[in-house]
Amino acid sequence: MDERTRLRLDVSYDGTEFSGWAAQPTRRTVAGVLVGALDLVLGAGTVTGLTVAGRTDAGVHATGQVCHLDLPATVWRKHRERLLRRLARLLPGDVRVRAMTEAPVDFDARFSATFRRYEYRVTDAPWGAEPLRRRDTLAWHRPLDPAVLTAAAAGLVGEHDFAAYCRRKENATTIREVTRLDWRRDPDGILVATVQADAFCQAMVRSLVGAMLTAGDGRRPVDWPAGQLARRERSSEVTVAPAHGLTLVAVGYPEDPAEYAARADRTRRLRLPVES
Amino acid sequence: MDERTRLRLDVSYDGTEFSGWAAQPTRRTVAGVLVGALDLVLGAGTVTGLTVAGRTDAGVHATGQVCHLDLPATVWRKHRERLLRRLARLLPGDVRVRAMTEAPVDFDARFSATFRRYEYRVTDAPWGAEPLRRRDTLAWHRPLDPAVLTAAAAGLVGEHDFAAYCRRKENATTIREVTRLDWRRDPDGILVATVQADAFCQAMVRSLVGAMLTAGDGRRPVDWPAGQLARRERSSEVTVAPAHGLTLVAVGYPEDPAEYAARADRTRRLRLPVES
Repeated sequence: MDERTRLRLDVSYDGTEFSGWAAQPTRRTVAGVLVGALDLVLGAGTVTGLTVAGRTDAGVHATGQVCHLDLPATVWRKHRERLLRRLARLLPGDVRVRAMTEAPVDFDARFSATFRRYEYRVTDAPWGAEPLRRRDTLAWHRPLDPAVLTAAAAGLVGEHDFAAYCRRKENATTIREVTRLDWRRDPDGILVATVQADAFCQAMVRSLVGAMLTAGDGRRPVDWPAGQLARRERSSEVTVAPAHGLTLVAVGYPEDPAEYAARADRTRRLRLPVES
Repeated sequence: MDERTRLRLDVSYDGTEFSGWAAQPTRRTVAGVLVGALDLVLGAGTVTGLTVAGRTDAGVHATGQVCHLDLPATVWRKHRERLLRRLARLLPGDVRVRAMTEAPVDFDARFSATFRRYEYRVTDAPWGAEPLRRRDTLAWHRPLDPAVLTAAAAGLVGEHDFAAYCRRKENATTIREVTRLDWRRDPDGILVATVQADAFCQAMVRSLVGAMLTAGDGRRPVDWPAGQLARRERSSEVTVAPAHGLTLVAVGYPEDPAEYAARADRTRRLRLPVES
């Protein structure tokens, strides 16, 4: 049997024209386009086991997505020097492979991850979103109070059952540890939420942001988003914020590669789904 | 005769889908779309004398464009409170009116301007441009040396005859004062040139950037861009950098409105064309 090499890929994409990450037979997806380009260079079926850190939904962007895949060591040795530039020429402009590095076979882009970090961009300017950033910035039509957003965020940090903010899945826990959740105003006046957790359930970041925005614009009390944590199932009162404001900016892994396997075992045991 | 009010408009646009600023009968232009929206709210022909600070070419963007126009004082009084939000709803997402303010009748967006400031974004990453910024970032396929770009830029600052970098026009001087020209690396690793002058002739910024890039990637000596200033006519050796990397970021005016008229008289006397 051929010896196989595991590669870590760091990937960016503009999610506007994609039906999300995961390959689907009849839709344009990031995984579909990426595998199509790799097949063209290396031959169909050469690459196997494509696994992603964050299965982003349709319309969600990434500047720090990570995935892994396997290919025959002989193929990798032949193409390693030029593969990144060939992919740059073959891939459409809305997806880029920023780096491609050999990884230990224990490295699992999904299960070895220690955290996922997302940013959500929103502007409350009466004139709307800056045209060059309208693809990744939500225009909110009511004034937002940054102090209220910050206070609402503080109540969501920590380990909680986020059932109110999750689409329920069989056999999957909704307990997550949100290690960071804060708002800042960037130099252009855009409000940017940074949300980091060990893992997220589907649409969780957008549900948290949706809840905070209704507090930030004064329609809900500041402690309303944290109050939803008492619920044991998805709250129909929580609005999911639009996909286009959301970007996966970073995925973290253990510094010591010797910990990749142990981390992956722990994640599998906890049944943490890792969608967003 | 109706008393008329002069308005200053601050405008942003993503130039990708526009055939430049200036209205053309059969093409989609920023001025055409803007006047179309104003006509819809105020009635056709209500707004007159639309005049812009920088007549940007097809594909060039703006975050700090300025224009002025006149309309009957009675119409302005009736619509002033809600006009900005109505325009936000009517205009397509790739053009925004950020502010709309009453200005003295002496204010001339074009002739009262004391400077125009542009930025040009370029990346030499082997994998290309970040997808979410690919619309306003040029991907350069050779490594660029920031120190060489900076040295090349220094030789172009000051008052010079920029004939080598201008498309020649009848009766128009090609002498300009470049008051700022420098390169920085932004936090995402993008090389950003800032170019500021009293005024620019057509395609001048993109010609200066094109010359600096051929020095920055080692194909020309570092003093080659400044050396071109000795020429008395457009240099065919200077490549015009692509439009999509260029953004008009600011236009300056005298702090004291009493100087608007004097500044405009001086500009007209010097026959400074103000295209880019």
